[in-house]
Amino acid sequence: MSTASAPLSQSARPSVRAARAWAAQSATSPLAPFSIDRREPLPDDVVIEILYCGVCHSDLHQVRDEWHSSMYPIVPGHEIVGRVTRVGTHVTKFREGDLAAVGCMVASCQRCAPCAAGLEQYCTNGSTLTYNGPDPVLGGPTLGGYSESITVKESFTLKVSDRLDLAATAPLLCAGITTYSPLRHWNAGPGKKVGIVGLGGLGHMGVKFARAFGAHVVLFTTSAAKVEDGLRLGAHEVVVSKDDDAMNKHTSSFDFILDAVSADHDINAYLALLKLDGTLTLVGAPERPLPVSAFSLLTGRRRFAGSGIGGIKETQEMLDFCAEHGIVSDIEMIRIDEINDAYERMLRGDVRYRFVIDMASLKA
Amino acid sequence: MSTASAPLSQSARPSVRAARAWAAQSATSPLAPFSIDRREPLPDDVVIEILYCGVCHSDLHQVRDEWHSSMYPIVPGHEIVGRVTRVGTHVTKFREGDLAAVGCMVASCQRCAPCAAGLEQYCTNGSTLTYNGPDPVLGGPTLGGYSESITVKESFTLKVSDRLDLAATAPLLCAGITTYSPLRHWNAGPGKKVGIVGLGGLGHMGVKFARAFGAHVVLFTTSAAKVEDGLRLGAHEVVVSKDDDAMNKHTSSFDFILDAVSADHDINAYLALLKLDGTLTLVGAPERPLPVSAFSLLTGRRRFAGSGIGGIKETQEMLDFCAEHGIVSDIEMIRIDEINDAYERMLRGDVRYRFVIDMASLKA
Repeated sequence: MSTASAPLSQSARPSVRAARAWAAQSATSPLAPFSIDRREPLPDDVVIEILYCGVCHSDLHQVRDEWHSSMYPIVPGHEIVGRVTRVGTHVTKFREGDLAAVGCMVASCQRCAPCAAGLEQYCTNGSTLTYNGPDPVLGGPTLGGYSESITVKESFTLKVSDRLDLAATAPLLCAGITTYSPLRHWNAGPGKKVGIVGLGGLGHMGVKFARAFGAHVVLFTTSAAKVEDGLRLGAHEVVVSKDDDAMNKHTSSFDFILDAVSADHDINAYLALLKLDGTLTLVGAPERPLPVSAFSLLTGRRRFAGSGIGGIKETQEMLDFCAEHGIVSDIEMIRIDEINDAYERMLRGDVRYRFVIDMASLKA
Repeated sequence: MSTASAPLSQSARPSVRAARAWAAQSATSPLAPFSIDRREPLPDDVVIEILYCGVCHSDLHQVRDEWHSSMYPIVPGHEIVGRVTRVGTHVTKFREGDLAAVGCMVASCQRCAPCAAGLEQYCTNGSTLTYNGPDPVLGGPTLGGYSESITVKESFTLKVSDRLDLAATAPLLCAGITTYSPLRHWNAGPGKKVGIVGLGGLGHMGVKFARAFGAHVVLFTTSAAKVEDGLRLGAHEVVVSKDDDAMNKHTSSFDFILDAVSADHDINAYLALLKLDGTLTLVGAPERPLPVSAFSLLTGRRRFAGSGIGGIKETQEMLDFCAEHGIVSDIEMIRIDEINDAYERMLRGDVRYRFVIDMASLKA
C-alpha cells in the first residue's frame, strides 16, 4: 500500500463497497447518516465489521473544526473494535471471525527514525490518522469508526482478547494508550508519587493504569462529586483542585503528573506540585495556549511535556496488559442516533467515563 | 552559622564593619552610594575584598522589583570575584591573599534531599540568595557584590584560578553556571545538535560551553548584526530568528535548545525545532507567562523545562573547566558610577556581552 498522500493511479485504485456511517458535513452541522466508500481488501488489508466505537473528545474538536484542520465530510471515531470479516491474500495475523481493533492511526511512512523505533505516532512524514487525514489509497479524507465497517492494513490492526468486555475495550484504543504510554515512558510505578489531573475519559484510564503499575496515585478533580468515584477507580488520594489548602499540601512532592484536561486550566498550579526534576505531561489538547510562568519551571528544574497516543507495538502491549489485569474503560453505551446529544453531555462532563456507540444501532 | 531566616539572638550577633556599596532604596530609585554592614568573620567565614562584580539581568529585575519579591535597600551583584583578606578560625580551604568567588547563593539548609545531592539551588527550604534574600545571620536582606567586601561561609565560596583574566571570570558565577549546568544535565556533547537562543550575557556563555562540550551549535538571534560574532564565539551556524525560512529548515531537528532570553518571545517557534523527545530549557526569566500550545509538546513528546544556576560543587567544576579550557566571558568593564547607564544599555541589548564593574572605582 502506498503511503504517499496522493491516491493511487486510477488503474490501481482498489474497488470499493458502500458502507453506512454518520458524518458531519461542516463545522456547524450535526452528525447525520451518510454513505461512504470502503475499499475492498488489498493483499495486506483486514476488513473489520465495527461492533463498538468509543467517543473521544477529539471527535468533537474535529467535527467542530476547533483544531482548524478539519476536512469535510468527517466520519469521526478512532476507538474501534469489531470482528474480521475478510482478509487480503497476504494477511497472516488475522482470520475471518477474529476480534480486532483499530486506534488513531492507519498508516505511517515506515522509513523514518520514529517509525523504526515503533513510534509511528511521531512519524516524521506524518502518520495517517484514522479519520480526518489524507487517505493514501482512495484520496480524500480518511473516514473513521462511526460506520459499519473499516478496511485497514494488517500492520495497523490490533489483536483483542475475548476475555474483556468488548464494548468497554473500545476506549482503550485512544483513552487507554494515550495514558498508558506516558505513564510507562516516565516510569510511573512502585515508589513513585503520580498525579492524574482530570477525571474524564482519559483521566479515569490514567488512574487505573497508574494504580496497576504500582504508583501512589493522587487524582485531581474540580468536582467534589467525583471524589468517591476516584477512590473506587484506584486513586489512593483525591484532591479537589479548587481547595487551595489541599493543593498546597502537595507542593513539590510529585515525581510525575499526567494532565488529562482538555479545557483551559492553570498549568502553573500543577507544575508547582512537582518535585525536583519532576515532569508534568499533557495529554489533553486545550484549544488555547497555556500560559507557563518561567519560575514554575526554573525553581525545580521541572519539565512540562506532551505525549500523543502510542505506537502500534505499545498499543498491542497495552491491550495485552489490560487483558491480563482485567482493565477496561467505564462506559455508557449509546445508540448512534444519540451521538449529537452525547457530545453536549461530554462538554458538560456528564459521562462516566466514556461513551461507546453500539454499532448495531446503525443498522436498526 | 544558623540557616534559620531569623537573625541570631542579640548576644550571638557577630560584630560588623562598615563597607562602601551602591544600593537602590526603592523600585523607582537609581542605584547610589550607600554604607552597609558586613559581619566580622565567624569561624567558618571568609572575608573577600571584591575586585570585580558582573552585572546580571536579574540585578535589574530585582532593583526594579519586576519579580515582585524585592526587599529594600537592595545591593545587587552575584558575580563576585576578589581576594581573601581574612578567614575564620575553622577555615581550611582559603588563606589570606587567595583569589575567591561568590555566586548567587551564600547558604542553604544542608539537610534536604536537593542539598544532599549538591543541588543547593533547589534547596527545599529555600537557599539564601547572595542579595535580596533574608540574611540568616544579621537579619534584613542579604547584600550583594556592588560593594567593597563580602563575608561568606567557606562552603559557599569558590576557588578561582589565576590562569584566567579575573574580571572576565566574574560572569561565570551566574551567566556561566546557569548555562553550563543545563548543558551538562541534558548531555549537550558530541553527536548532539544544540540550539542557543539569544546572544546576551547568558547566551554567549551557552555558545562557548556547548562548543567546548563538542555539540553541533546553532545560535538563534534576532539581530543580523550579531551573526558574525556568534560564529566567532563558537557557533557552527547562526540563524536570524525573524527569518521564517531559516527557522523552518531546522524543524524537528534539535536534541536540546537552551533558551537564554529574558524578554517576551514565542516559545512555540523554538519547541517546533525539537526532535522527538527533545528538550527546550529556559534559563532566562521573562516577567510574563509564556503561552505554550499543547500541540507544540504533544507532536513530538517534547519537553519544556527550566533550570536555575547550579550547585556549589558544579559551580567549582565549571570554574575548573573554564581554567582548563581558557573560557571566560566577553566583557565590557565599567565604573560603579556608570551602573545606571549600564542598565539602560543592557535593556537595549547594547553590551557585548557582560558588564563587569571594576570595584576599584568604588574607592576612587
